[in-house]
Amino acid sequence: MQSLDFHHAASTLRAVRKLKPDPIPEATLRRVLKAATWAPSGGNRQPWRVIAVRDPAIKQRFAELYRPRWSAYTEPYRTKFDSLPASVQGAVTAGDYLAGHLHETPVVAVFCFDPGGLAITDAGLDRPSVVGGGSLYPAVQNLLLACRTEGLGCVLTTLLCAEEPEVRKLLEIPEPWATYAHVPIGWPVGRGHGPINRRPVESVAYADQFGKPLFPPESGPG
Amino acid sequence: MQSLDFHHAASTLRAVRKLKPDPIPEATLRRVLKAATWAPSGGNRQPWRVIAVRDPAIKQRFAELYRPRWSAYTEPYRTKFDSLPASVQGAVTAGDYLAGHLHETPVVAVFCFDPGGLAITDAGLDRPSVVGGGSLYPAVQNLLLACRTEGLGCVLTTLLCAEEPEVRKLLEIPEPWATYAHVPIGWPVGRGHGPINRRPVESVAYADQFGKPLFPPESGPG
Repeated sequence: MQSLDFHHAASTLRAVRKLKPDPIPEATLRRVLKAATWAPSGGNRQPWRVIAVRDPAIKQRFAELYRPRWSAYTEPYRTKFDSLPASVQGAVTAGDYLAGHLHETPVVAVFCFDPGGLAITDAGLDRPSVVGGGSLYPAVQNLLLACRTEGLGCVLTTLLCAEEPEVRKLLEIPEPWATYAHVPIGWPVGRGHGPINRRPVESVAYADQFGKPLFPPESGPG
Repeated sequence: MQSLDFHHAASTLRAVRKLKPDPIPEATLRRVLKAATWAPSGGNRQPWRVIAVRDPAIKQRFAELYRPRWSAYTEPYRTKFDSLPASVQGAVTAGDYLAGHLHETPVVAVFCFDPGGLAITDAGLDRPSVVGGGSLYPAVQNLLLACRTEGLGCVLTTLLCAEEPEVRKLLEIPEPWATYAHVPIGWPVGRGHGPINRRPVESVAYADQFGKPLFPPESGPG
């Protein structure tokens, strides 16, 4: 197992979209999936499972389903590509690579959940519901962090959720189980993980009321 | 900053519900909130903010709103309490402590999100939507892991989301921002983090199709 300090792992966890087709050793795959199991969930019900997709025919179909979704999702970026920040241009270009090579990715981890295991406390509110994800995405984040410690590239995608009926058939997912994330995993083609670009904590953390800064803007380096 | 290996941190991250009222140093609070900012989000939009609630009057009101929600949520457990596994009994008892002391917790981190920043790919499916959480809960998991490295107790709660209209007024959260997690943070009363109880990876990881084991059941120690 690769040992890596949490802060170092988390602060250099990039969305790595250019992945080599080289296989992932079984023991490595087991370690990163095991890390997912450690995540918290409501009532510790762990209402999720993960399917490691390695079958070439299934991955081929994933790629066919993914490509038009990716094109549609990124269309707004393409119409103004030249005026985008370099980081965004890079993400779109790397995403194009992923869309073109998804079938060659050694593993696509498909996360499934049981809606009956969720306590969705925001279901009755007059806005989109997100709370079901609270028992589900911590496991994905643990997987991503574990991949980071192994030097494995990975990226959290959800575009294929819109293709759930066909994905369900491909993977023989029984009702009422559903899908919530597709994580391509593989060794990076390029430099892989490294520095990330995020909002400073001073601009996202408030004190007692929304919009009131918790930390002064000049409170020191990150 | 406390350095801790990711695997050690994640595999000993417990839901710690018995928290001391002692304050959290500003620099420590800054470190754990900064870790949240490193999380991935769709299009790197980071459509979330976090309000560190320390105001005694607001925490008092949180406690009043939380208690009946907690009682109702745990009612099914209480009717069969004596027959529950010790771990579940312990969680309910610790949760009772949290419900009784929420107003004394030094910080309650209230996570807010902008629905307009989410690409909810499962919105059109005939099942509860969870994908919005994919850009939101990785940040919470990072916060929990960062607390773990500092020895700070914490627990991801969502019961107060059902009280969002009043929480919105208390924290002056403007439309369209909404709430998705409330994380009490403080120094543990008891032993705090430590061994956790989860399903073995062999029972949650499948190969190419749902239900088909990826790893043999006896593939070695965790």
